[in-house]
Amino acid sequence: MNSPFILDTDTVWYAIGDGSLEKSRNRLADFHRVIILVDENTEKFCLPVLLTQVPELASCNLIRVTSGEKNKNIAQSSYIWNELTRLNASRDTLLVNLGGGVLTDSGGFAAATFKRGMRFLNIPTTLLGMVDAAIGGKTGVDFHDFKNQVGLFVNPVGMIAEPLFLKTLEEKQWQSGFAEVIKYALIMDRELWSKLEGNRYAEIVDWNPIIVKSARNKIDIVRFDAMEKGVRKNLNFGHTIGHALESYYLKSFNEITHGMAIAAGMICEAWISSKVFEMECTQLDEIVQLIDANFERLDFERSNIPAIIALMQQDKKMRANKLLFSLLRKIGKASHDIEVDEKLIEESLYFYIDRKKCNQI
Amino acid sequence: MNSPFILDTDTVWYAIGDGSLEKSRNRLADFHRVIILVDENTEKFCLPVLLTQVPELASCNLIRVTSGEKNKNIAQSSYIWNELTRLNASRDTLLVNLGGGVLTDSGGFAAATFKRGMRFLNIPTTLLGMVDAAIGGKTGVDFHDFKNQVGLFVNPVGMIAEPLFLKTLEEKQWQSGFAEVIKYALIMDRELWSKLEGNRYAEIVDWNPIIVKSARNKIDIVRFDAMEKGVRKNLNFGHTIGHALESYYLKSFNEITHGMAIAAGMICEAWISSKVFEMECTQLDEIVQLIDANFERLDFERSNIPAIIALMQQDKKMRANKLLFSLLRKIGKASHDIEVDEKLIEESLYFYIDRKKCNQI
Repeated sequence: MNSPFILDTDTVWYAIGDGSLEKSRNRLADFHRVIILVDENTEKFCLPVLLTQVPELASCNLIRVTSGEKNKNIAQSSYIWNELTRLNASRDTLLVNLGGGVLTDSGGFAAATFKRGMRFLNIPTTLLGMVDAAIGGKTGVDFHDFKNQVGLFVNPVGMIAEPLFLKTLEEKQWQSGFAEVIKYALIMDRELWSKLEGNRYAEIVDWNPIIVKSARNKIDIVRFDAMEKGVRKNLNFGHTIGHALESYYLKSFNEITHGMAIAAGMICEAWISSKVFEMECTQLDEIVQLIDANFERLDFERSNIPAIIALMQQDKKMRANKLLFSLLRKIGKASHDIEVDEKLIEESLYFYIDRKKCNQI
Repeated sequence: MNSPFILDTDTVWYAIGDGSLEKSRNRLADFHRVIILVDENTEKFCLPVLLTQVPELASCNLIRVTSGEKNKNIAQSSYIWNELTRLNASRDTLLVNLGGGVLTDSGGFAAATFKRGMRFLNIPTTLLGMVDAAIGGKTGVDFHDFKNQVGLFVNPVGMIAEPLFLKTLEEKQWQSGFAEVIKYALIMDRELWSKLEGNRYAEIVDWNPIIVKSARNKIDIVRFDAMEKGVRKNLNFGHTIGHALESYYLKSFNEITHGMAIAAGMICEAWISSKVFEMECTQLDEIVQLIDANFERLDFERSNIPAIIALMQQDKKMRANKLLFSLLRKIGKASHDIEVDEKLIEESLYFYIDRKKCNQI
């Protein structure tokens, strides 16, 4: 069995990989009072695993929310604040967020704003949570059609990424995490890219090294630039267009996964990279090939594109009225704060829906 | 004319006292984009003053909220988030909170959680705002009956306390600020106490030195202990019981001012101080006398006391299920984190409603 990766910073305690829950047992048992936030899925599939590994938590109060991005809103925050009030939680109570990215985003926001800040700890139960959402202190909820429009940067006291939980994961949840894994490979980790090349995520057997490598990439970046002033912006590769697509579909009846939106965003933004930075055509085709092997294409049309571009105006990465992108110089290296003309954004969406090759446009 | 007190820290720029708005003109004019949050009173009485002093702000968008503690809730935050969204505000837009403590609390919270943190600047228009609420980064809204139950610690980029605005202040708003002025004198500033002794606030002519002294006391404390781990807790003198009383009356039809609640809290907690720290009887009587000269007594009865004490259980200053008080050792010196038995809290409320003298109980 592998040994988990442990990192104890001034602010956050990380335990990543096989055996991380066992390694965290004493830490968790040491908290004076713990309340666990679950959704209907994690209560059923993940809570029993947690309580087997950390039996000291068996008598904790639970707060139950309904899963799903559509419920990640201020009404859910109000429900959590209400429950915390009812349970007489105080600032030194620990809220354990046991769930995917939606739950850790929402639970982190509710905890950090309850009585001006109670502590929380993330135990992600999805691949997306383990490699991305539960790391780095971005919390928040959606507001109207805008993703994470209300939230804040605040770190959990700890983050435990235990692959045991992945056994019960549905396919679409694997997908969303895998999009972020691809992103780390593209922006900063050529070695990780070579592990992924030619692979379909469903065929990967040993996830442990991929999780540890991806999570460490994210931890390295957010420790260096917590407030997203510089290099952390590279993590937005694929997300400027991806989030607009996600918002666009959130309004429609066709539900898409976060992964599908980000996969589409990465194809578009890789194409923009090839235009702005002259990234090689063969690399663009390689990227598109790996993404297409793992993600279905979205079905929007040319006539939908103006509405999608309008949604980008609400992007949190806007400064002084200009959209700033993080783009690839080559596979494994990204740059941030690149201004991109609306025309080029539009063309990248054409490239996506027309399913062209790099040298066909 | 006095010169304003200016302090430029790493995070916050303070301008306090006569002339502070004039001194801030260039700073305000330098922001790329500004949105001003007002209520119906500050739009009418204070906005014209601001625009006269800083005409560069004349073309700014306004967000209008309704004044009053009863409106300081999540519905108001949602309204502000909505307006910020509609106005396409971005993280580098500045929200100027022009109003009293209720407005700066609520505007600061909405700004700090919009897109995970846009900047805000406080221009308090009440005495309470100038000497207390707008300094120190406590933001928040009430939730059900609990004051500031949802919020966070986050500093404004600047705080401008211009006494010009006080000219339009109603009596009850003077009162609320004056309660905090008395508090600074009691916990840390014997010299300020000697300026107040025997005075009724309505008879004070030159407020400038009192505002500067009070605001500087608060700034000194919050710079030393931003997160309320230690000495900042001294600022809670009078507030543990005071907030419970405020919550209690918020539920009833009898509206009381923040000042009346804190004044009552200070009488009770001064009495507890005399029991716990053997503060001299003459000092307790002096304190009660100054407070009674400036504040009407609240009209609750013995039968209401259990409900008032129950409200203290939701206090943010609770740790490990015990109520911790900040108490006076003598006038001008306080200590924090003092555990107080429920019995003593109850008796202090009897002392208050029975209007006893120190040596009568």
